[in-house]
Amino acid sequence: MKLVCAQNILTTNLSFVSRAVSSRPSHPVLANVLLVADEATQRVSLSAFDLSLGIQTSFPAEVESGGKLTLPAKLLSDIVSRLPDGDLTLDNEEGEAENNLVTTLTCRSGRYQVRGMGAEEFPELPIVEDGDVAHLPADALIEGLRSSLFSASADETKQVLTGVHLTLREDGLEFAATDGHRLAVVQTVNPENTEAKPKKATKTGSEPTLDVTIPAKALRELERMLDAKAENAVALHFDRGQVVFEWADQRLTSRLLEGQYPNYGQLIPKQFSRQLTVERRVILAALERIAVLADQKNNIVKLSMDSGKQEVTLSVDAQDVGSGKETIPAQITGEDLDVAFNVRYLMEGLKAFTTSEVQLQLNTATSPAIVTPLGSLKMTYLVMPVQIRS
Amino acid sequence: MKLVCAQNILTTNLSFVSRAVSSRPSHPVLANVLLVADEATQRVSLSAFDLSLGIQTSFPAEVESGGKLTLPAKLLSDIVSRLPDGDLTLDNEEGEAENNLVTTLTCRSGRYQVRGMGAEEFPELPIVEDGDVAHLPADALIEGLRSSLFSASADETKQVLTGVHLTLREDGLEFAATDGHRLAVVQTVNPENTEAKPKKATKTGSEPTLDVTIPAKALRELERMLDAKAENAVALHFDRGQVVFEWADQRLTSRLLEGQYPNYGQLIPKQFSRQLTVERRVILAALERIAVLADQKNNIVKLSMDSGKQEVTLSVDAQDVGSGKETIPAQITGEDLDVAFNVRYLMEGLKAFTTSEVQLQLNTATSPAIVTPLGSLKMTYLVMPVQIRS
Repeated sequence: MKLVCAQNILTTNLSFVSRAVSSRPSHPVLANVLLVADEATQRVSLSAFDLSLGIQTSFPAEVESGGKLTLPAKLLSDIVSRLPDGDLTLDNEEGEAENNLVTTLTCRSGRYQVRGMGAEEFPELPIVEDGDVAHLPADALIEGLRSSLFSASADETKQVLTGVHLTLREDGLEFAATDGHRLAVVQTVNPENTEAKPKKATKTGSEPTLDVTIPAKALRELERMLDAKAENAVALHFDRGQVVFEWADQRLTSRLLEGQYPNYGQLIPKQFSRQLTVERRVILAALERIAVLADQKNNIVKLSMDSGKQEVTLSVDAQDVGSGKETIPAQITGEDLDVAFNVRYLMEGLKAFTTSEVQLQLNTATSPAIVTPLGSLKMTYLVMPVQIRS
Repeated sequence: MKLVCAQNILTTNLSFVSRAVSSRPSHPVLANVLLVADEATQRVSLSAFDLSLGIQTSFPAEVESGGKLTLPAKLLSDIVSRLPDGDLTLDNEEGEAENNLVTTLTCRSGRYQVRGMGAEEFPELPIVEDGDVAHLPADALIEGLRSSLFSASADETKQVLTGVHLTLREDGLEFAATDGHRLAVVQTVNPENTEAKPKKATKTGSEPTLDVTIPAKALRELERMLDAKAENAVALHFDRGQVVFEWADQRLTSRLLEGQYPNYGQLIPKQFSRQLTVERRVILAALERIAVLADQKNNIVKLSMDSGKQEVTLSVDAQDVGSGKETIPAQITGEDLDVAFNVRYLMEGLKAFTTSEVQLQLNTATSPAIVTPLGSLKMTYLVMPVQIRS
């Protein structure tokens, strides 16, 4: 194998795939990146795979002779990213003729030799051949991920809750994530661009829906790699065990999470007796200050509605440490109520929104409250109140 | 006590003193900051002290009534830094009349109450009354610290080597730091501005020199707080146990490290048989790449001089992993030699320099080598070569 490529292109592509390199590989070859050079297409592809998440990317190069090999991902990336701008040559044809695992990297500043492992030991990235296919615009996918991922559980024992649940219907895609305390549901409606094309009848019959739970870790990488400005749609291929996202020169594969995802639709109240509209930045800034004291105790912030004055008071009482109180203007309908929340859950939801105003809807101090961004995407953020100690 | 001050000024001053707040305080009050409001001068001072490092800073405020109290440093700083711009009121005169430890902080967005501790429990910051005094320009002090601190030992068991040794003579100040493997010595010569004024005869007789070892931790804070553009000189007060730096509205105190500092002057060779001049950025960039492989093994980089070609080759051989070689132009005098160094030590010295060229002087592959910046401050960086395995 011998090829010439630009230092900055190799650096970028190595950084894409590096996130799928296992930090504690179960087999030594999984610490490596697979490099495949194709003389016919004059392209090089890089792949990394931790047996759950796989990332593949390809880029143009001058391929003098094709071949495959694997190289230590971190070492290669650390060296290449520090090399000066310009062309690099990768060559493993020097030295011993057969089965040479040493690759020579030459650039204008010097020469490096790195020992790799045979490509035959590297596991194939999963492919989905007979599964369903859907096409989604990149910006809708990014928006949905950004507004849901933060609600997934970070607790690995929570299994299906460590993922984001995707439901594709004919009129759009729905993202849902919950850790059991709060729930984010986002509908990205793109009837023109979204299409579900079942290649075969699904188990449940003829309903053309995608309904899978994807590990949040894989989706965070997807969000990081996707370019909102890219014209290309992202293709989703999926079967019962795997999902493959394909776009431009990139490909991300992930196993799916097994198990029944909670039927979250039934948790969301249909009617509300109280409603409160506030400026998002104002309430978020106040909550960030309140949180300093709330963090000292039990994370609880109390919201006290005053419909007469049309204002809401946020307060915290961290006994022995201190207390705090802020009052902000609000448009309030319904009877006054005191209700308490985990301040972190409120803040995380408000940070994921981008609108200037948000609406809080609720019924009682012990039933689910809903926060929604006013006038933007269809996002529903459900938070359970916490008991106020009397 | 009641006072009004600007949010941004209080935030800045809290951040200055916060570095002297103990993260694991041996007494609860050491987690607090001491706040003293003086009605006569209309100033507020803040102090923090971890029993080794002490920082005091003061700023103007509208002091309605003076007083002293201590407040939890991190909590206060976290709240104040998140408050909106504008005036803040601090008041502990509400509530119970006597010995009220709750302070109320009011701003346009809300009201916070924070529980403190009595000022009488807070230890006095050390003062040096009868010691020696010296005045140094801030920029010379910063330069000296920047060029020496990196060589101090991070190993707390190395006692005196965890500090920087300062020697003040009539013609200037000398900084020295060593961890036993390398040594940085910096002379900042400022005959106009530097003055040593012994108030009393020192133990060794009439020699007007300062000769102390100050913990690197305290000096890193000093470097961070000093403003190179400030006109003011920094006053050093010192006796056998303490040093106090005073400038503008700030004051930093530190205990001194006890014990004999190595007689480092005798380690520096007076004559050299070989000399090598290279571009600093070029050799530093090459070493950073070499280090990726050297880090995998024993950190060793080999320098091979070629006086015929006027170039030096840097190489690394990390068996089983890979190898690397870079050749860069150099002005070389003396016979060719192969010599090896710890790549980290070379890099750290080169990063502390600011000149475009550096000079490496040495005699043999087993005697101390000296690196100096060409045409800048008087800095000497001594590195011991390491044995080359044959």
